[in-house]
Amino acid sequence: GLTTFANLPYVHCLSAEKNVDSFDIAFLGAPFDTGVTARPGARFGPTGIRWGSRRLDKDMGDSIYTGQNPLADWAKVVDCGDAPLTFLDNTIALKQLDKAHEVISSRTTNSSDYTVPRIITLGGDHTTTLSALRSTFHHWGPVSVLHFDSHIDTWDPAVLGGGISHYAGVNHGTFLHLAHEEGLIRNTSSHAGIRAPVKYSSDVKNDKRCGFDIVTARDMDKLGVTGVIEKLKAHVKGTRVYVSVDIDVLDPAFAPATGTAEPGGWSTRELLTVLDGLEGIEIVGGDVGWFLLFARSTCSS
Amino acid sequence: GLTTFANLPYVHCLSAEKNVDSFDIAFLGAPFDTGVTARPGARFGPTGIRWGSRRLDKDMGDSIYTGQNPLADWAKVVDCGDAPLTFLDNTIALKQLDKAHEVISSRTTNSSDYTVPRIITLGGDHTTTLSALRSTFHHWGPVSVLHFDSHIDTWDPAVLGGGISHYAGVNHGTFLHLAHEEGLIRNTSSHAGIRAPVKYSSDVKNDKRCGFDIVTARDMDKLGVTGVIEKLKAHVKGTRVYVSVDIDVLDPAFAPATGTAEPGGWSTRELLTVLDGLEGIEIVGGDVGWFLLFARSTCSS
Amino acid sequence: GLTTFANLPYVHCLSAEKNVDSFDIAFLGAPFDTGVTARPGARFGPTGIRWGSRRLDKDMGDSIYTGQNPLADWAKVVDCGDAPLTFLDNTIALKQLDKAHEVISSRTTNSSDYTVPRIITLGGDHTTTLSALRSTFHHWGPVSVLHFDSHIDTWDPAVLGGGISHYAGVNHGTFLHLAHEEGLIRNTSSHAGIRAPVKYSSDVKNDKRCGFDIVTARDMDKLGVTGVIEKLKAHVKGTRVYVSVDIDVLDPAFAPATGTAEPGGWSTRELLTVLDGLEGIEIVGGDVGWFLLFARSTCSS
Amino acid sequence: GLTTFANLPYVHCLSAEKNVDSFDIAFLGAPFDTGVTARPGARFGPTGIRWGSRRLDKDMGDSIYTGQNPLADWAKVVDCGDAPLTFLDNTIALKQLDKAHEVISSRTTNSSDYTVPRIITLGGDHTTTLSALRSTFHHWGPVSVLHFDSHIDTWDPAVLGGGISHYAGVNHGTFLHLAHEEGLIRNTSSHAGIRAPVKYSSDVKNDKRCGFDIVTARDMDKLGVTGVIEKLKAHVKGTRVYVSVDIDVLDPAFAPATGTAEPGGWSTRELLTVLDGLEGIEIVGGDVGWFLLFARSTCSS
Amino acid sequence: GLTTFANLPYVHCLSAEKNVDSFDIAFLGAPFDTGVTARPGARFGPTGIRWGSRRLDKDMGDSIYTGQNPLADWAKVVDCGDAPLTFLDNTIALKQLDKAHEVISSRTTNSSDYTVPRIITLGGDHTTTLSALRSTFHHWGPVSVLHFDSHIDTWDPAVLGGGISHYAGVNHGTFLHLAHEEGLIRNTSSHAGIRAPVKYSSDVKNDKRCGFDIVTARDMDKLGVTGVIEKLKAHVKGTRVYVSVDIDVLDPAFAPATGTAEPGGWSTRELLTVLDGLEGIEIVGGDVGWFLLFARSTCSS
Amino acid sequence: GLTTFANLPYVHCLSAEKNVDSFDIAFLGAPFDTGVTARPGARFGPTGIRWGSRRLDKDMGDSIYTGQNPLADWAKVVDCGDAPLTFLDNTIALKQLDKAHEVISSRTTNSSDYTVPRIITLGGDHTTTLSALRSTFHHWGPVSVLHFDSHIDTWDPAVLGGGISHYAGVNHGTFLHLAHEEGLIRNTSSHAGIRAPVKYSSDVKNDKRCGFDIVTARDMDKLGVTGVIEKLKAHVKGTRVYVSVDIDVLDPAFAPATGTAEPGGWSTRELLTVLDGLEGIEIVGGDVGWFLLFARSTCSS
Ligand SMILES: [Mn+2]
Ligand SMILES: [Mn+2]
Ligand SMILES: [Mn+2]
Ligand SMILES: [Mn+2]
Ligand SMILES: [Mn+2]
Ligand SMILES: [Mn+2]
Ligand SMILES: [Mn+2]
Ligand SMILES: [Mn+2]
Ligand SMILES: [Mn+2]
Ligand SMILES: [Mn+2]
Ligand SMILES: [Mn+2]
Ligand SMILES: [Mn+2]
Repeated sequence: GLTTFANLPYVHCLSAEKNVDSFDIAFLGAPFDTGVTARPGARFGPTGIRWGSRRLDKDMGDSIYTGQNPLADWAKVVDCGDAPLTFLDNTIALKQLDKAHEVISSRTTNSSDYTVPRIITLGGDHTTTLSALRSTFHHWGPVSVLHFDSHIDTWDPAVLGGGISHYAGVNHGTFLHLAHEEGLIRNTSSHAGIRAPVKYSSDVKNDKRCGFDIVTARDMDKLGVTGVIEKLKAHVKGTRVYVSVDIDVLDPAFAPATGTAEPGGWSTRELLTVLDGLEGIEIVGGDVGWFLLFARSTCSS
Repeated sequence: GLTTFANLPYVHCLSAEKNVDSFDIAFLGAPFDTGVTARPGARFGPTGIRWGSRRLDKDMGDSIYTGQNPLADWAKVVDCGDAPLTFLDNTIALKQLDKAHEVISSRTTNSSDYTVPRIITLGGDHTTTLSALRSTFHHWGPVSVLHFDSHIDTWDPAVLGGGISHYAGVNHGTFLHLAHEEGLIRNTSSHAGIRAPVKYSSDVKNDKRCGFDIVTARDMDKLGVTGVIEKLKAHVKGTRVYVSVDIDVLDPAFAPATGTAEPGGWSTRELLTVLDGLEGIEIVGGDVGWFLLFARSTCSS
Repeated sequence: GLTTFANLPYVHCLSAEKNVDSFDIAFLGAPFDTGVTARPGARFGPTGIRWGSRRLDKDMGDSIYTGQNPLADWAKVVDCGDAPLTFLDNTIALKQLDKAHEVISSRTTNSSDYTVPRIITLGGDHTTTLSALRSTFHHWGPVSVLHFDSHIDTWDPAVLGGGISHYAGVNHGTFLHLAHEEGLIRNTSSHAGIRAPVKYSSDVKNDKRCGFDIVTARDMDKLGVTGVIEKLKAHVKGTRVYVSVDIDVLDPAFAPATGTAEPGGWSTRELLTVLDGLEGIEIVGGDVGWFLLFARSTCSS
Repeated sequence: GLTTFANLPYVHCLSAEKNVDSFDIAFLGAPFDTGVTARPGARFGPTGIRWGSRRLDKDMGDSIYTGQNPLADWAKVVDCGDAPLTFLDNTIALKQLDKAHEVISSRTTNSSDYTVPRIITLGGDHTTTLSALRSTFHHWGPVSVLHFDSHIDTWDPAVLGGGISHYAGVNHGTFLHLAHEEGLIRNTSSHAGIRAPVKYSSDVKNDKRCGFDIVTARDMDKLGVTGVIEKLKAHVKGTRVYVSVDIDVLDPAFAPATGTAEPGGWSTRELLTVLDGLEGIEIVGGDVGWFLLFARSTCSS
Repeated sequence: GLTTFANLPYVHCLSAEKNVDSFDIAFLGAPFDTGVTARPGARFGPTGIRWGSRRLDKDMGDSIYTGQNPLADWAKVVDCGDAPLTFLDNTIALKQLDKAHEVISSRTTNSSDYTVPRIITLGGDHTTTLSALRSTFHHWGPVSVLHFDSHIDTWDPAVLGGGISHYAGVNHGTFLHLAHEEGLIRNTSSHAGIRAPVKYSSDVKNDKRCGFDIVTARDMDKLGVTGVIEKLKAHVKGTRVYVSVDIDVLDPAFAPATGTAEPGGWSTRELLTVLDGLEGIEIVGGDVGWFLLFARSTCSS
Repeated sequence: GLTTFANLPYVHCLSAEKNVDSFDIAFLGAPFDTGVTARPGARFGPTGIRWGSRRLDKDMGDSIYTGQNPLADWAKVVDCGDAPLTFLDNTIALKQLDKAHEVISSRTTNSSDYTVPRIITLGGDHTTTLSALRSTFHHWGPVSVLHFDSHIDTWDPAVLGGGISHYAGVNHGTFLHLAHEEGLIRNTSSHAGIRAPVKYSSDVKNDKRCGFDIVTARDMDKLGVTGVIEKLKAHVKGTRVYVSVDIDVLDPAFAPATGTAEPGGWSTRELLTVLDGLEGIEIVGGDVGWFLLFARSTCSS
């Protein structure tokens, strides 16, 4: 066979065929990295994620902490492969990704409890989350975003890239601002792990306006993992949630292969404990991305 | 001279000569990696460990924490080089390693307090610990194992690899099961740092049957280093102890060059504090392994 | 989609289904590296080859030299993915590979000119060629082998590994000896690119007995690419040919990611010109392997 | 000081100041890589080139072959640093680069023989050459291009990327087609080192239409370095020449850090001998690029 | 432009010109690594630091924790480039560095509050701090040193290197001893993050004699970041402070590219919190160094 | 055992014992790299060379080209390990190396044909050859040097480094000048593979004065390997010869792990053919060096 995420079955979700195998949760690769201000390479991220997951298997997949197996629970989980995205025009690429989300989320579910399959996007640069939020909005209405990142990503396009052109304004630092402008997200959202520099007064003010509460990286030292979990869960106030993990939320020691490494971040033990702690909220979509395939070193471009 | 572990004297412990320099603790390389289900390369681990230790020296070897010098205490510590192991037949290779342990542990000690030299094996894949436990049993009887690892390594050969053949069943995930079957270890053993997935009901049950208590990686957050130390020391109940360190107990940030990296592990500061805290129990043998020589990156095969 | 060799269509050749899409030439991954005396890692080779081929496409696949497109000629070419091979028992693994070859070569062809699909194996260590030669023999009778390698690979198991056990004697340096013993190959075979050291008198004598003529690496300087091509083609004397490329035939500058790098080899320009020059002989099977996934450096294990 | 190309003096050529130090040849970095279909990273190429040149110095700069010193001949050679280019909109970025070329080529020369300073652009992806050719045309009229590359780079935008949008059609594989359409280049141009696959009939035909003769990589084996030099020089027929070096003209063994590595290329000894052999033709501009900063490995993204 | 630290303006501080742009804090590279007992490469450290800082910008430089912008506060901060240091004679190189410090600290300040510009040296091996302390002493009198390091660096030259020759005695492990002997520092100094082995009785005694208090790496577990901050601040007793950061104070997971990696160190989150916590003491100079350019791996020499 | 060069027996040649095993040719590591103007790291070169030679074995050591086995011919060949050299004072280090050469060359030979063992030094930076030439001169009188290098290494200390101090003048670019001044070498010496820039008039003139003829890297294209061999052999005119191989004679594609990489060099096939071709001249000593341990990349410092 070929390498799929966690050795999950591959389903031709994006094919023109009307009927494909049903599923409840689909992994979808988004090979895209031309919306970035820094180091590119995330176009190869989905391949890197799949390769890195090659020892995962639902046949030996119970957590030692919870006894639960996320790959063999109520949901049938599959890999839909990569969306076909051009590297040469961001506007077109995002439309291609919108289309992929639309096709997959319109497929038949396996479980009888839900009629809409959920999607976990494998990035790719963070701009791709805009596409996922549009798709989520279409099926589930506005959502709270739990955004794990070292950056706020609500920059005003006029500040980050966009003074130059409208085209330049749609990027991995502005997509949450744009999601807010499009009405896709709720003001019960949170960032977690924030530590990158900002223009304090204007950026943080705009961030609040976009609906976000901030948990900084160093808040982990004050609140502990339990406190962080409680704060994040309380803030969504029972709404539906989209979980977006920018891998740069981790300290570069733990995730060196990213394009905007920021020192002073969380460890994998901290992040995974927080993610496990989210149990109980209603998650309707998510993503993880901003990996540079296989590149551990800050010296590689 | 040539590169030895921590610049220790090299003794030809494995030569046919009857008399070689006496010693109390011997480092022995076990260049073996064909008992693995994942990424190979640990056959070069002993060379990597020696190279990484090149700045250690017993002339400037006092711990800043304890004031003690493990290389210049009661024991004369030496390096015996690598056991000659074939890469082409695991059954033969383990017999070769059994023989090497037998020869070294039969040498004359330097101290008058003990007549049996202790061995610290430098791995190599974890299968090699089976050989060390046989040798330890021969001289010291059954021992408690303090097993630092992200994996339990007590899988039943019928589950991990062995459904295929008896040969395949002897591997780096089953050796503690086999040690239990051979009666080499006590039921006062512990794992520490566990976090890799399992088949919960069957694997954990079998693990208990093999005599192990589990301290998970995240238990560090609950118990702290002091609590972990106390729990591990209490559980051995005064028996003799064999300490086995699979380097994948560390988070991949701290030990990327291993074959089965599992996120969410311990830091070197945590592990070293725990190891220092073991003072007071009677350790009669040990090993550290599962390094891939010099390979930091998850991209190298 | 997922990454296939040269973006070829993926066919589930190895599934239990009776009917799958027909094809004429199939790429088959053989993730195997436990038959080696040196640096392992080739178990990840097929993945590395597929990733390295990601810019190849039959829609823009004409050679600038010949105007021909090997992916869009008479044959329908597909990727069958990897054969499922255990890493824990070579004997079993080779039987698994024998079975995979049997299943694939029994599928229906697309072209009406041939009834037996041809297979190109992506290694993996060179031991896997033994399996391919058995399959080839079954369908096409004995073949001449054109063997591109820095090593002769006809070592007597009694010399290389096998003094220890029968199991150890089946390895990447003996498989051509074994193929000769099994009667799979003709005495009109050739090695090309040879340069690694030998026991001259015994090894070269045995090599000749196994049916091989030797073109050394430095013969390129004397004969030129044209001379090498002519010599290789003449020597097969019109018989059917199996082409086996051990990537270590290239100089380590051109193929560093291999387990037995030997300086003084051929360049890619030389090798590719020779391979193009083979046009006109009847090739019924082939392989390329002994890549370590993504590992460029001699320092990584 | 700071790192400049070959330790040349840094001149603030791009500043708003009217008068800066005069010069005859300027190195200009073009940190741009969003016009590519493959592996990005060339945005860091100019930094990599400067770092790689740090041992060059005009005080010890005589060629052992010619006795001449290119950094201390008739021309005053300087480094102008990098042009400020956005990574978020190719259309804007190319305009920014056009502007940078305009400003620099309008500065005062040091020599009295020429009034227009020449520019050597340090790439960056090959799309940047379009900007350089516009600037060259403005001052010197249409030029013959000597284009060292494994790819023809005259693809019709309708074929390569452009079927999607006009925006996507301006890329590193179409810029020479566009230069021809804009009338910037002569039909006495040549490619050298070509070996990447094409759609033979249509692409080669269009290439000829754009004014190019092809010297393939393997032509080196037939013509030798002397023959290649003669052919290239003869073909420009005394016209002014722009020399563009895509580093992928070299075999990946010699230049692994590029985005579109093609095996079977030239060695550095071959390329440098050819470049030295161009003496005698009138070169009015040039570039070298498509380096990925510091990335030697094909595994890094 | 060219790459400066944090995109700060480059000032020709070291030129012979009498008047250059005024500044309050200057970054100065010290490319020097021949005073080391271990792995060299730090001569390229200043380049590595500048490259690593390329995303920093005073226009978006407010800390998310404090709201303050260290690059746009009272002080005008600039980059003076690298001091020109020979690699072939340590004695000469240190004199060259003394001279560079003298020239820069004699320039005119921009602020009216201070007449002496402060310098932050970018290393280079730690020996270079001796030069900085001489310069600091000249302008500010004796200072307390806050020394972040895994090593004490107060070794007696007779113990570390100097038994051999006076020349050998001036190195990266003895410079704080020498600074004490020259009367440059106060006995209200502290080390922080210490964990490397010593000769306990003699080395620690001498260290105390040189005026240092020790905060070990594991003290972080006992005191917490707040406790560490308080202890360090209290100990300087209101004196002027020089802050020296040897990057090996971090655990190798966080700073692998150094020459004397010691496991069990601090995380970047811990170190940065401590550094932020120093606000309120009077810092008159500082340095950070012992980076090996771009080298992440312990395998690279 | 421990890793020796080519698995040769280790002899304690440098011990204080009067009698050690006799030998005819000794490998001696010279871990030294502080005499360099560029990238350091060669102090780890001897370890890298030994590790790289781990598959060599005199039991399977016949050349496929000559049928001869250099490790099992008339001479008993051994490894003496590394000379103990300080990294902190070049003057002392060279004296330590002089002493090591003296001790080893005074040992008893195994063969009855010669009374002086020969030494092959494993570098280390090229400065170490000065020490070897002194030792060679002492036993064999002045020798012709066959110097394979991209650099001439006869720079006048006044030009390269020495304007600064006498100490700085003894380095890897001046040692052949110094050897000439000390009368150690004959004017029948040759450089081979030269291509790095020079100050043509003064440097080449001085080079000739020091007794050297130059074969450039590109002379390989004109003379072929046979012509190069003949020229080198003819020029020594029957005198005794010392062969010194600076690994930078190879193109960086073939030997990237060096400190002064120069493009346009020889391939390993060319170099090894030339070295084999030297048979017939009387070689009394030699060295190979300037490797950076395990570092393939030009990005690592
Ligand atoms: Mn981010
Ligand atoms: Mn983000
Ligand atoms: Mn484990
Ligand atoms: Mn284990
Ligand atoms: Mn081979
Ligand atoms: Mn082979
Ligand atoms: Mn190209
Ligand atoms: Mn190009
Ligand atoms: Mn330190
Ligand atoms: Mn230090
Ligand atoms: Mn050289
Ligand atoms: Mn040299």
